[in-house]
Amino acid sequence: MSDGTFIAVDWGNSNRRAWRIEADGQFSHVHADDRGTLKLKGQGVAAEIAALRRTIGDLPMLMAGTIGSADGWGDVGRLTCPVGLSDLADGLIWIEPGRTAILPGLKYLSEERVDILRGEDVQILGAVESGLIPRDALVCQPGTHSKWGLVKQGRLVEFTSAMTGEAFALIRDHSLIGEVMEPHAQSGPAFQDGVRDGANGDLLTLLFGCRAAVMMGRLSRADCASRLSGLMIGSEISAHIGAKPVHLIATEPLGSLYKEAIETLGGTALIADCISAFIAGTTAIWRHTA
Amino acid sequence: MSDGTFIAVDWGNSNRRAWRIEADGQFSHVHADDRGTLKLKGQGVAAEIAALRRTIGDLPMLMAGTIGSADGWGDVGRLTCPVGLSDLADGLIWIEPGRTAILPGLKYLSEERVDILRGEDVQILGAVESGLIPRDALVCQPGTHSKWGLVKQGRLVEFTSAMTGEAFALIRDHSLIGEVMEPHAQSGPAFQDGVRDGANGDLLTLLFGCRAAVMMGRLSRADCASRLSGLMIGSEISAHIGAKPVHLIATEPLGSLYKEAIETLGGTALIADCISAFIAGTTAIWRHTA
Repeated sequence: MSDGTFIAVDWGNSNRRAWRIEADGQFSHVHADDRGTLKLKGQGVAAEIAALRRTIGDLPMLMAGTIGSADGWGDVGRLTCPVGLSDLADGLIWIEPGRTAILPGLKYLSEERVDILRGEDVQILGAVESGLIPRDALVCQPGTHSKWGLVKQGRLVEFTSAMTGEAFALIRDHSLIGEVMEPHAQSGPAFQDGVRDGANGDLLTLLFGCRAAVMMGRLSRADCASRLSGLMIGSEISAHIGAKPVHLIATEPLGSLYKEAIETLGGTALIADCISAFIAGTTAIWRHTA
Repeated sequence: MSDGTFIAVDWGNSNRRAWRIEADGQFSHVHADDRGTLKLKGQGVAAEIAALRRTIGDLPMLMAGTIGSADGWGDVGRLTCPVGLSDLADGLIWIEPGRTAILPGLKYLSEERVDILRGEDVQILGAVESGLIPRDALVCQPGTHSKWGLVKQGRLVEFTSAMTGEAFALIRDHSLIGEVMEPHAQSGPAFQDGVRDGANGDLLTLLFGCRAAVMMGRLSRADCASRLSGLMIGSEISAHIGAKPVHLIATEPLGSLYKEAIETLGGTALIADCISAFIAGTTAIWRHTA
């Protein structure tokens, strides 16, 4: 093993980000690109890892995300909830002993439903570890596949996924509505109205209504994107909002947009930075294995 | 004008169908292809119309659908609900007097919402005209953009659209779920369970759950398509189902699938053939203009 310095990689479907994390916990030399596993489709992963080391340093590497799936290095399996940071550390898969490791994914199983994730758990448990969120918390990670997690006594006991970000992109890029909208959503009245309507109505009807409203001159093309986003986020979050504050682990602008949506429906939300959470999570796991 | 024989064309976004309708109301020489207006994008429409006449006969032509939009011959405007068959006949746009006509679209306007359609109204009002459905009825036309219409005293007074069919195709063709499903939905327990869940839950969460269930071995790839379809149809129809029977104006297998969904949620449904309805509607309009 090295002196404790290592490379942490958050390698998902669409993007990957890597950090050099020093022995004292400080991080530097950030690398980010769009070489996600949907592009790799399982090809050339060893070469990609070698290239990352040439860029960042010839150091041990800890990776999380869909790099642990068939589209990445290969399926490294899944742990079953509830899961804490030490479980993740114990479940680490060494693809090159002492040098290159991938974190397993997670599954949630109950009689009624199943759910899966890869990598989001590191952020959630890292946020707990570093005090960014409490040890008992309702957590939301907005994104392509948004995750809602329930943390109890510092462990992730349950989670639910929603394809909110993917659905927004599908409609923007491939549907008839996409032709009458600007590409990006913004906060404000159109977004908030969408959130309120999406929380209470049939989504497929409300989505078509956006196109009709643009064509009849009742909604601008710019507001159309914001209303669409609001409808979807409102639909997603309404089932989760209650007395508990929602701890958002997010990047901007998505964190603020979700905060606005949650507050529009009468909830409260706090934003924790997802990069700090990921660094804290991977660092704790790495120290645990040392 | 001719002896009363004419060509009726149902020309939508994805497909077009044409019939030669004789003076006695009988129809023959059906033509169907996929030259919908999304393919035309407003180009070569006159040549397409001439080619139809070469195939079917050099006869007067009455067209309905998105052929009356910018992607077709051009925007021929919209009537405002409530609308009866005689309003459609009076609103006919002659692009070549006495020879070639396009029916205007419809819009529904209220304080709360707007909605639009092109062509579905001919089927609904034709079904009323020919006694396929009563003069007071709740109507559903499943499809790419499903329509729910309220008919009172023989006139279409209100309608709502849902992008159910389009959303199913988006997910099948462009999403990560599409990779783990068969392309076609079928009736049965997986479909019915989807309908029940879709009527009560958050659609974006339930959709992601299908992918998780396939990957965890709880749902087969064949049942995945049926469950997805059930979720979307259940979500769409739940807001409309009550004491009134639903009059489905549909082709198979979509008519039977919607009937099964409506009955799964405790409603009743009757299926009327949409081709008979369209022929009846266009024939009545044509006689009215003669």
